[in-house]
Amino acid sequence: MKQHLVATALSVSLGTAPAFADDRKHLLATPPVTAQDMISVSPALAKYTDNTVIGDLWKRPGLTPRDRSVITVAALIARNQTVEFAHYFNLALDNGVKPSELSEIITHLAFYSGWANATAAVAVAKDVFAARGIGPDQLPEASPSLLALDEQKDAPRRSTVEQTVAPTSPGVAQFTNDLLFKDVWLRPGLAPRDRSLITVTSLIANGQVAQVTYHLNRAMDNGLEAAEASEMLTQVAFYAGWPNVFSALPVVKDVIEKRPS
Amino acid sequence: MKQHLVATALSVSLGTAPAFADDRKHLLATPPVTAQDMISVSPALAKYTDNTVIGDLWKRPGLTPRDRSVITVAALIARNQTVEFAHYFNLALDNGVKPSELSEIITHLAFYSGWANATAAVAVAKDVFAARGIGPDQLPEASPSLLALDEQKDAPRRSTVEQTVAPTSPGVAQFTNDLLFKDVWLRPGLAPRDRSLITVTSLIANGQVAQVTYHLNRAMDNGLEAAEASEMLTQVAFYAGWPNVFSALPVVKDVIEKRPS
Amino acid sequence: MKQHLVATALSVSLGTAPAFADDRKHLLATPPVTAQDMISVSPALAKYTDNTVIGDLWKRPGLTPRDRSVITVAALIARNQTVEFAHYFNLALDNGVKPSELSEIITHLAFYSGWANATAAVAVAKDVFAARGIGPDQLPEASPSLLALDEQKDAPRRSTVEQTVAPTSPGVAQFTNDLLFKDVWLRPGLAPRDRSLITVTSLIANGQVAQVTYHLNRAMDNGLEAAEASEMLTQVAFYAGWPNVFSALPVVKDVIEKRPS
Repeated sequence: MKQHLVATALSVSLGTAPAFADDRKHLLATPPVTAQDMISVSPALAKYTDNTVIGDLWKRPGLTPRDRSVITVAALIARNQTVEFAHYFNLALDNGVKPSELSEIITHLAFYSGWANATAAVAVAKDVFAARGIGPDQLPEASPSLLALDEQKDAPRRSTVEQTVAPTSPGVAQFTNDLLFKDVWLRPGLAPRDRSLITVTSLIANGQVAQVTYHLNRAMDNGLEAAEASEMLTQVAFYAGWPNVFSALPVVKDVIEKRPS
Repeated sequence: MKQHLVATALSVSLGTAPAFADDRKHLLATPPVTAQDMISVSPALAKYTDNTVIGDLWKRPGLTPRDRSVITVAALIARNQTVEFAHYFNLALDNGVKPSELSEIITHLAFYSGWANATAAVAVAKDVFAARGIGPDQLPEASPSLLALDEQKDAPRRSTVEQTVAPTSPGVAQFTNDLLFKDVWLRPGLAPRDRSLITVTSLIANGQVAQVTYHLNRAMDNGLEAAEASEMLTQVAFYAGWPNVFSALPVVKDVIEKRPS
Repeated sequence: MKQHLVATALSVSLGTAPAFADDRKHLLATPPVTAQDMISVSPALAKYTDNTVIGDLWKRPGLTPRDRSVITVAALIARNQTVEFAHYFNLALDNGVKPSELSEIITHLAFYSGWANATAAVAVAKDVFAARGIGPDQLPEASPSLLALDEQKDAPRRSTVEQTVAPTSPGVAQFTNDLLFKDVWLRPGLAPRDRSLITVTSLIANGQVAQVTYHLNRAMDNGLEAAEASEMLTQVAFYAGWPNVFSALPVVKDVIEKRPS
């Protein structure tokens, strides 16, 4: 993790300027909050940000800074928290999330948290990309060769949708089976494990516990380890609040315990 | 549906200018996102927007473009997604939603999703109305003659509130019975069927499944057809995300199945 | 309650200028909504705001204007409704909420509704504080002497976290026990009763019913009276919407009924 970038918007000790020049502030939903801003309202929040969030949480060994960035960006987009988009998009890129991956995260979450969540992310990401000289050559194709679908493994899911969703809403069933699972999930620009990680994160960050069982199992099928799931909860507690994590905990516990070891 | 307006902010192929002039951009929470912005972050999201959302979803036969606009505007207001207010308010007016109806939608959702959701909608709608020359003569009166209340049909609902709500919170019970159901729901500017449609949409869009049974039944009493409810779920999936719709599906299924045919 | 301040942004009859000068509007996520703006979109919403919200709700006897402000500010921050931050932060200060208390409310809700909710609040509060000349001497220390922890009373809670949370997420358990309950909750700048009040409000305002039982009991242990909890629901109905309150009602009823009288 490049420490200087984390410091830019958050560090109390440095208190340096925000990433965006003053005359571009109006392009953001809310202007970046500097360390000095935070101190002028809550010295305690500045302390917790510096000592606990930056100084402890982000340095814990259970997840790489790159994965923490993936989780944090997903939580913020899923909750439409535009005030922090610029800072955490930049931090994600510094932490090794590729521009193509950030692009795919935004696209994927259009389906899992709502189209306007993705649009709001685009409104900020375009400036972040432009400021870093990230051009079309670094973005995923609109229609790339897709990953192969394991039809046999996908059959039970598909069948469940056809039996439980289609009779009530044929449209939802069709888009779920033909668009989401035969197209979006198979895009190669983001590893299936990461796609699952942002899906689970968005569910927990929005209190949507009902779908966590399916998607956390899928995440672990896709390579997410139990210790990473555990630490993901710690990261989400800070960025989506304790209550969402406490509501998800029994479900996560249940999934992990029932996995074949 | 006037295709050119949908194209304005979303279409990849045209890529025309946003609806608001540059010097008014700061009036919006986030500036409008153009097709070019979207391409510069995610060519895939631009493709899905063009081919799937505009080219397929909005053209499906199960709901009129006018009803899709009512649903979409309700989902966006209920979720406070200010970035898309200007575009979808304009699209709604082009799709045949009357200014007086949009006004009533905002007022109604103050009660069902929170006062500040309505205030945020006003902050954008005032500019949309001004740009179109929509004046006071096209708005509903503050205190019009109300629709007649069917006291007998309303009696069980009223009684439930008095028995289950009043003992715990007399204030909530009073405002529910005297303000919501004897005033807001009886305002003539929005048909009861549409009032129900935006209520159900806001519930599903915010994951508030517990009240869907009552309000979907009410919607169908008010004239919403099962096929429309089914297709409403498809529309909401894109604008409020798949998980909210999957959580609502079993409840919608149950309501539809138990209706007397 | 200083009536003139409520009137500034909301009153239809006065229709005075918003609190922020025009050239600072861009600092807010959405510019303040004046009474005239509201009338130009919905005369009905303006009427309900004036007659019902300002003229009735805020004057009801069950809670002081100061407590209504605490609840309202907590609901708005928990739901990230930036459009109303400036108005209601100012109103809270006029209603007797101390700057130090508002500072602590923001800090506390970082943990209960997410870090970026607090950051967004800081982005507006810094201007509100600056405009009122509120400086560092009126803010709580970053690391004050903490209130004493009643270890015996806290033991069951701590033990539950160690048994149910720690095996699944040691990180969440550690931060819950060492940071939240041994540090944040013991900060002296906000009375435990108020800390509980904003916690319960944020839970209800976000539909997080699962944690209401524990925190409402804690609130009442900390001095919140049943009649105040009842009236809190009335206030939250307007600011977070009826459905969230209806979902919380059975839980609140159950907690109150089971309390030893």
